[in-house]
Amino acid sequence: MTASQPATSSKTETKPKLAFRPLPVPQVDVRGFWGDRVDAVASKTAGILYDRCVEARMLEQIDPDRPSPGVVIPFHSPSPDEADAQGAEFTGSTVTTQMFWDSDWGKTIEAAAYSLYRRRNPDLEKKIDAVIDMYGRLQQPDGYLSSWYQRIQPGLRWTNLRDCHELYCAGHLIEGAVAYYQATGKRKLLDIMCRYADHIASMFGPEPGKRNGYCGHEEIELALVKLARATGENKYMELAKYFIDQRGQQPHYFDEEARARGADPKAYHFKTYEYNQSHKPVREQDKVVGHAVRAMYLYSGMADIATEYGDDTLKVALELLWDDLTTKSLYVTGGLGPSAHNEGFTSDYDLPNETAYAETCASVGLVFWASRMLGMGPNARYADMMERSLYNGSISGLSLDGSLFFYENPLESRGGHHRWKWHRCPCCPPNIGRMVASIGSYFYGLADDALAVHLYGDSTARFEIAGRPVSLVQTSNYPWDGAVAIEVETEAPIAFTLYLRVPAWCRQAALRVNGKMVNLEAVTIDGYAAIRREWRRGDRVELDLEMSMARLFANPQVRQDIGRVALARGPLIYCVEETDNGGGLHCIALPREAKLEAQREPNLLGGIVTLSAIGSRAETENWGSDLYRPEPPAAEETKLKAVPYFAWDNRDPGEMLVWLREG
Amino acid sequence: MTASQPATSSKTETKPKLAFRPLPVPQVDVRGFWGDRVDAVASKTAGILYDRCVEARMLEQIDPDRPSPGVVIPFHSPSPDEADAQGAEFTGSTVTTQMFWDSDWGKTIEAAAYSLYRRRNPDLEKKIDAVIDMYGRLQQPDGYLSSWYQRIQPGLRWTNLRDCHELYCAGHLIEGAVAYYQATGKRKLLDIMCRYADHIASMFGPEPGKRNGYCGHEEIELALVKLARATGENKYMELAKYFIDQRGQQPHYFDEEARARGADPKAYHFKTYEYNQSHKPVREQDKVVGHAVRAMYLYSGMADIATEYGDDTLKVALELLWDDLTTKSLYVTGGLGPSAHNEGFTSDYDLPNETAYAETCASVGLVFWASRMLGMGPNARYADMMERSLYNGSISGLSLDGSLFFYENPLESRGGHHRWKWHRCPCCPPNIGRMVASIGSYFYGLADDALAVHLYGDSTARFEIAGRPVSLVQTSNYPWDGAVAIEVETEAPIAFTLYLRVPAWCRQAALRVNGKMVNLEAVTIDGYAAIRREWRRGDRVELDLEMSMARLFANPQVRQDIGRVALARGPLIYCVEETDNGGGLHCIALPREAKLEAQREPNLLGGIVTLSAIGSRAETENWGSDLYRPEPPAAEETKLKAVPYFAWDNRDPGEMLVWLREG
Repeated sequence: MTASQPATSSKTETKPKLAFRPLPVPQVDVRGFWGDRVDAVASKTAGILYDRCVEARMLEQIDPDRPSPGVVIPFHSPSPDEADAQGAEFTGSTVTTQMFWDSDWGKTIEAAAYSLYRRRNPDLEKKIDAVIDMYGRLQQPDGYLSSWYQRIQPGLRWTNLRDCHELYCAGHLIEGAVAYYQATGKRKLLDIMCRYADHIASMFGPEPGKRNGYCGHEEIELALVKLARATGENKYMELAKYFIDQRGQQPHYFDEEARARGADPKAYHFKTYEYNQSHKPVREQDKVVGHAVRAMYLYSGMADIATEYGDDTLKVALELLWDDLTTKSLYVTGGLGPSAHNEGFTSDYDLPNETAYAETCASVGLVFWASRMLGMGPNARYADMMERSLYNGSISGLSLDGSLFFYENPLESRGGHHRWKWHRCPCCPPNIGRMVASIGSYFYGLADDALAVHLYGDSTARFEIAGRPVSLVQTSNYPWDGAVAIEVETEAPIAFTLYLRVPAWCRQAALRVNGKMVNLEAVTIDGYAAIRREWRRGDRVELDLEMSMARLFANPQVRQDIGRVALARGPLIYCVEETDNGGGLHCIALPREAKLEAQREPNLLGGIVTLSAIGSRAETENWGSDLYRPEPPAAEETKLKAVPYFAWDNRDPGEMLVWLREG
Repeated sequence: MTASQPATSSKTETKPKLAFRPLPVPQVDVRGFWGDRVDAVASKTAGILYDRCVEARMLEQIDPDRPSPGVVIPFHSPSPDEADAQGAEFTGSTVTTQMFWDSDWGKTIEAAAYSLYRRRNPDLEKKIDAVIDMYGRLQQPDGYLSSWYQRIQPGLRWTNLRDCHELYCAGHLIEGAVAYYQATGKRKLLDIMCRYADHIASMFGPEPGKRNGYCGHEEIELALVKLARATGENKYMELAKYFIDQRGQQPHYFDEEARARGADPKAYHFKTYEYNQSHKPVREQDKVVGHAVRAMYLYSGMADIATEYGDDTLKVALELLWDDLTTKSLYVTGGLGPSAHNEGFTSDYDLPNETAYAETCASVGLVFWASRMLGMGPNARYADMMERSLYNGSISGLSLDGSLFFYENPLESRGGHHRWKWHRCPCCPPNIGRMVASIGSYFYGLADDALAVHLYGDSTARFEIAGRPVSLVQTSNYPWDGAVAIEVETEAPIAFTLYLRVPAWCRQAALRVNGKMVNLEAVTIDGYAAIRREWRRGDRVELDLEMSMARLFANPQVRQDIGRVALARGPLIYCVEETDNGGGLHCIALPREAKLEAQREPNLLGGIVTLSAIGSRAETENWGSDLYRPEPPAAEETKLKAVPYFAWDNRDPGEMLVWLREG
């Protein structure tokens, strides 16, 4: 676009051949492990998200028929220190309304949408419809829509993109709109958000008279890609690309914007634009910095644009960033962003366990990013990490029953860290809710004549290849068991490539097609076995993945993990909890030669596999009163039992530890 | 005192028989290890303290002939995070004057006084005399003296004892006055402070019309004891006892005082009066809580009063508090107060190494407290800990050359923790300066017919027993060598008991008197060998203390030290530094069976004994790029070399570690 007119509609251009796009939620039904998780969100979390928003007086904020809310009352959020009383009760406490609450509505609508697809819930649907109606009435004639700038700070729109989450809120409402449209077929919010997106496109862009800005909190980019895909309107893709391309260019927009407000750009609270990844143009970035969620959302948008435009300059930057994150700054759980100070990254190999911030949203964001890297083609490097973050640092953020939430996901707790009913900054609950409810869309990537299976699990997918309907049914007890049977159903024979991920954690894998063994090594590239054939109804693929147990060791440069070991089985990282092992978990040591045993426990935590081993425990009872002494503590034999990290803090509150001492 | 008149002079009452009082500084000349340390203070630190105070415009603050300073300019104090540039340069930066700066003058005068005794310095003496002259001119006709309340907040005196350090400042000026009088014979400041103390006594006390208050930051109590001992005026002892007795009584003075100011007592920044140990009457306290320095100063004052009044109710509380500190909350270095938040204590067994606050002043305060517990009789329980804190967590706060200072004394550093030239809150530099310069007064305790030797080291002490002069000459290379020869010099034979400490860290000790072996076990009680005899000129005592090397283990309840070991030799705790061992100290492990070797290195760090052993080091070079993997890191043999903790960060800046991994 070189003209100065507002962007006009244009159908999406031809995509690069190798673009793999996720299947929309309604095309994948999950059962088994993920079926239980989605059911918990549909039956519990979705309603809770709405109720908490209402209790926090967030309806007042968006309802144009009510008096302007001024100050609303969210929930008291005890600090972790204060929260050692069980249950983390919330109590009312007066706090000013928050400028990013449209985003909470957006994610709440999105989680509700997927939940409504999972199971009908006329009551919830009616409530969400009413919220959407309010947004419809709130929208300005020119398409602008922001409860904060319309009801709390009128007249100041587009004056502080750096700090005020204006486009971020738009992005989340767009994601909610796309999901609600896909799940229910209702277009009202989608139309509202298209009008708003058109308004945004009229305000931002390279054309003279438009602003050269972008949002301090990335999100609008990936949302516009979703909107473009859902509507077929390329103008939204172009706007997403513009925001990506413009980020970090000089003169710096946030400097100019601050001066226009009469503020000193140097007085920025976070001191460096690394905080929001605008310290340099995105194609020059090779180090993961700043606020972790912002970083993940930016890289997600970059990966989408790299996929859609076949943009190798973006791909190169993304690969460097991926290397940096995964070799220097990622918890073994797939958690990221160790510091509460900037909600983000610190220095290489700095991964404190007890004080890990590792926000749920950041792990969810890593799932977003990894899944979008797969748009450029199947590669287990990304899919394995997506799986790691999914099964560990992400879903740890939601209690098994779908009612309680973690914001921080430490890898060690003295017993004072517990799930919240809600949070003063409630970004994580709807984020993990929407991610779990949309898990089906992460299972597959569909290209013109290929389907990649990124995730395994009991499920049914429906899609089209060359205009013909295909179904794919996975039968599996994954992740507890690695046997996966896949049946292809198609009316007429159809040729396409089926890509099957062979995870790097798996020491032994076997593949049969219609009973015939396939030489895996010969067909595997980038961690995916590629089977190209003319598929016929009833074709059956059997993949046997050994659910390998492993001791994991950290790079010795991670000082916090030296001399320690983490237990894993398949994609799951394990931890020990006080309720199984008694208090003083730091006293436990696991000898390197100790045998690990896996045990299926159908009645524990909804049905899990536990790991156990004989370890030793430093005796505290007979130590005496000395604080220091020349004799080492005595040790006694102890049987330790570990449970999957994601399932911790779902029983009696107590200590937790991922990295066990070796010795 | 029951009358309501101001306290009148009265000579000190008869003391309990078993009170052991320290010898004043001018009665003990130290050489050897402590001689070097005192010389560094006398030749360098004392002048630096004065110069920094002047540069911080603290002269303006107390000079009544200059305009009221309003705002003065102290030094920029980089946070530890910012200080990874070597040297921690200070730069001017505008900050409001601090209400506790009279205390910095008090400690600076005290350090100068002891230094002037050590070596003549007419220039420094003239400067200090001028400071004293200013205080003389500043003092109000009624005796009141506070640069803050006279020059910054006139009219508000005695309105906020809780927060504003008013009596604390008085206490430090009193200590300075006593020291200057003892060291130089000049009475001017002593007279000034007696007038101020008389004024304080007229304002505070049990009599009707007086205030029932006490200071939020303890200090005045122990200072008044010093003043009483120096002047023989019991009224000061009585006032000290009143402040001790009144602390924490109900109705709570700080509540009433806040209400009188129109403030809400519940709006107290630190939330609980545990912060300043006034949460309950002192005799009911059994748990060390709150701000560490305040706690140590309070307990010091309590111990003085327990000694002077033979008050067993105080003694019982002190013993419980001592147990609590030394069995649950003390670093192996004698550091204390792990948290920067309250500059104090957190929970039992919580002793983080890298983030240890362990303020220099707190360890100095522990030396104060321990030395005063010895007033109630020789007991190695207290003297061993005094020695531990002296030789490690205290003098670590001062560089070997006497020019640079630590505020925090962590037990682990990634390389970013370095000594300061000065600090925004400059309490530690003059505190460690005055403590080191007065070290002689910690060596001995003198009772009516007994002398206790608490510390060993090349030195000469002069004292009187039953009115007759006695000298005691220690010849020793302590702490590098445990052989101590003591010669008694007296004109005529005189009977008294000589108590000699046999430290608990010493595995093998031998004692000879005039060449004749003494059965140590038979004469030792509470860790002191008691030798009662008629001493004659030339009597010679030889004590051979094995300088035992030890691996120290922490109570397994200290989670931060589990699986780790600290190295000690005699009273010294050791650490490894990057400059001797390369970076990545966390990668080093010390096998339990590894032999420790001690080596005298006369040219290293002023002459020390180093420890060395063969350990292993996890290889980082060949690990590859994975952050986590199933294979443990390879280990290579390494020779590790440890230096005394107090001497760290006197060479190339780098990492440091006290608690080594075992394995």
